[in-house]
Amino acid sequence: MSGRLTIVGIGPGPARWMTPAAQEAIAAATDIFGYSSYVDRLALKPGQTMHESGNRVELDRAGAALAAAQSGRHAVMISGGDPGVFAMAAAVFEAIERGPEEWRSIDVVVEPGVTAMLAAAARIGAPLGHDFCAISLSDNLKPWSAIEKRLRLACEADFVIALYNPASLARPEGIHRAFGVLRQARPGDTVIVFARAVGREDERVVITDLESADPAMADMATVVIVGSSATRLVQREQGVPWVYTPRSMELGRG
Amino acid sequence: MSGRLTIVGIGPGPARWMTPAAQEAIAAATDIFGYSSYVDRLALKPGQTMHESGNRVELDRAGAALAAAQSGRHAVMISGGDPGVFAMAAAVFEAIERGPEEWRSIDVVVEPGVTAMLAAAARIGAPLGHDFCAISLSDNLKPWSAIEKRLRLACEADFVIALYNPASLARPEGIHRAFGVLRQARPGDTVIVFARAVGREDERVVITDLESADPAMADMATVVIVGSSATRLVQREQGVPWVYTPRSMELGRG
Repeated sequence: MSGRLTIVGIGPGPARWMTPAAQEAIAAATDIFGYSSYVDRLALKPGQTMHESGNRVELDRAGAALAAAQSGRHAVMISGGDPGVFAMAAAVFEAIERGPEEWRSIDVVVEPGVTAMLAAAARIGAPLGHDFCAISLSDNLKPWSAIEKRLRLACEADFVIALYNPASLARPEGIHRAFGVLRQARPGDTVIVFARAVGREDERVVITDLESADPAMADMATVVIVGSSATRLVQREQGVPWVYTPRSMELGRG
Repeated sequence: MSGRLTIVGIGPGPARWMTPAAQEAIAAATDIFGYSSYVDRLALKPGQTMHESGNRVELDRAGAALAAAQSGRHAVMISGGDPGVFAMAAAVFEAIERGPEEWRSIDVVVEPGVTAMLAAAARIGAPLGHDFCAISLSDNLKPWSAIEKRLRLACEADFVIALYNPASLARPEGIHRAFGVLRQARPGDTVIVFARAVGREDERVVITDLESADPAMADMATVVIVGSSATRLVQREQGVPWVYTPRSMELGRG
C-alpha cells in the first residue's frame, strides 16, 4: 500500500491559469482536501472523495491529508494560487514535523502554481519588474510589531511590495494600520494597485496613489501592490494606464 | 488590420508547468520573439515566424515585437518563468513608453507563469511559506551599492530571500559579494538552497547552510534561496530533508 500526497496550486482562478501538472494530479486523486471555496472550483470525477473544510483549520486539514496518504490513498491538497506562498504547503510540512515519525516517509510532492501577485501584475503591466517583496497581513500567528517592522524596512529598501490577505477576518484593521506605515514612509504619489479576484468573474482592479487610496477597498480576495520609487504609469488614450517598474534604477520616476 | 502582442511566461522548463493560456497564445501567434534558449523549447507550427535574439538586447527585441503587432501581426514575446519577474514584460512597457505614441494603442496582454523561485520552493518543500523578497543580482542597470543596501535591509527584516540571476555574465562576482553581505548579517546555520534548472534535465538542487555554502555553485540557471531565522529542515530517513518556513513566527528555529 503506497499512498502519496500532492500539494497542488490551482492558480488564481480560471482553469487556463492552472498548470497541466496540477490538473493531472487532481485527476489522479482518490481524496481531495481543501478549503471549500477552492474545492468548489474543481470539476471532479465519480469516485473521488471530497474533504472540504473552513479556512482556519490548516493544521487539522494537513494532518487528515497525511493520514489518508499514509493509509495508501492518493491524496491531493488544494491551494489557491501557488501552494508555497502563504498557503497549504507550509502547513503540511509543519504537520509532518509535529506528527508521527512515519509521516516523514510519505511521498509528498508540491506542484507550483501562478500566485496571486503574478496574475495581478500581469493584468496591469509589469509592476514586479524589479526587486520586490511579499508580506502577508493575514494570520493571527504573527505579532503586528513584526509586520510593521517589515513594512518599514521594505519601504527603506525601496522594494515593490505585494500585500497578501490584506483584510482577514482575524485582523480586519491590518490594512488600515499598514497604510498608516506606508504613508509615513513613502510619498503620496506612490503607485497603489488594488487587484481583486484577478481572472475570476468578480475581478476588480483599481490603480491609484498612496495619497488617494482607500484601504477599505481591500478585501480577503485582494492583493495590494505598492510601487517602489521607480514604479511608473504609461498613460493610454483608451483604457487604464499600464503600470511597470523599469529594470534600470536610473530611469527614475515617470 | 488589428495586431496584438502577448507577453507569455512559459514557466521554468517543462510543458507541464506551462499554463494552458500560455500554450494557446503561442499556438495563435504569427510571430514569436524571444531569447534563443527559451524559443528553442517550443514546438512550433508551420507558418510561424521565429525571431530569436541574444539575452542582452531586451529593448530592441521589445521594439521589434511591438512594431510587428502595430503592423497587424499576432506577436508573442516569450519569457522563461513569469514574464513580469526580472523578465521581458518590463522591457516591453519601457519600449512603449519610449516609443512612438501609436504603440500605446497596441493590444498588449501579459500571460503570467510559474516563476523560478516558486518551482524551486516546491521542489524542496515550502521555504517561501512566510514573508519573502526577490532580488536580482543580474543586470548591469543597477549600482552594486543599491543591491547591497537591499540585501542588508532584507536581512534586517528577516525575509526569506530569493536571489535571481546570481551569476550573470555582466556581473559574475555579484554572488560572492552578496554572500559577503549575508555572512555579516545572518548566522552561519541559515538555510541556503541552490536550485538550478528545476524541472529540466540538468536540474541540480543543493541544500546547505550559510557557513558551508560555496557561492560558486550558483550559475545563470540557478535561483538561490536564503532562509529567514524561522526557516527549518525536516529530516527524513530517505532522501534530502524538507525545507519550510512556518506560518507562525513563534514556532522558532528547528
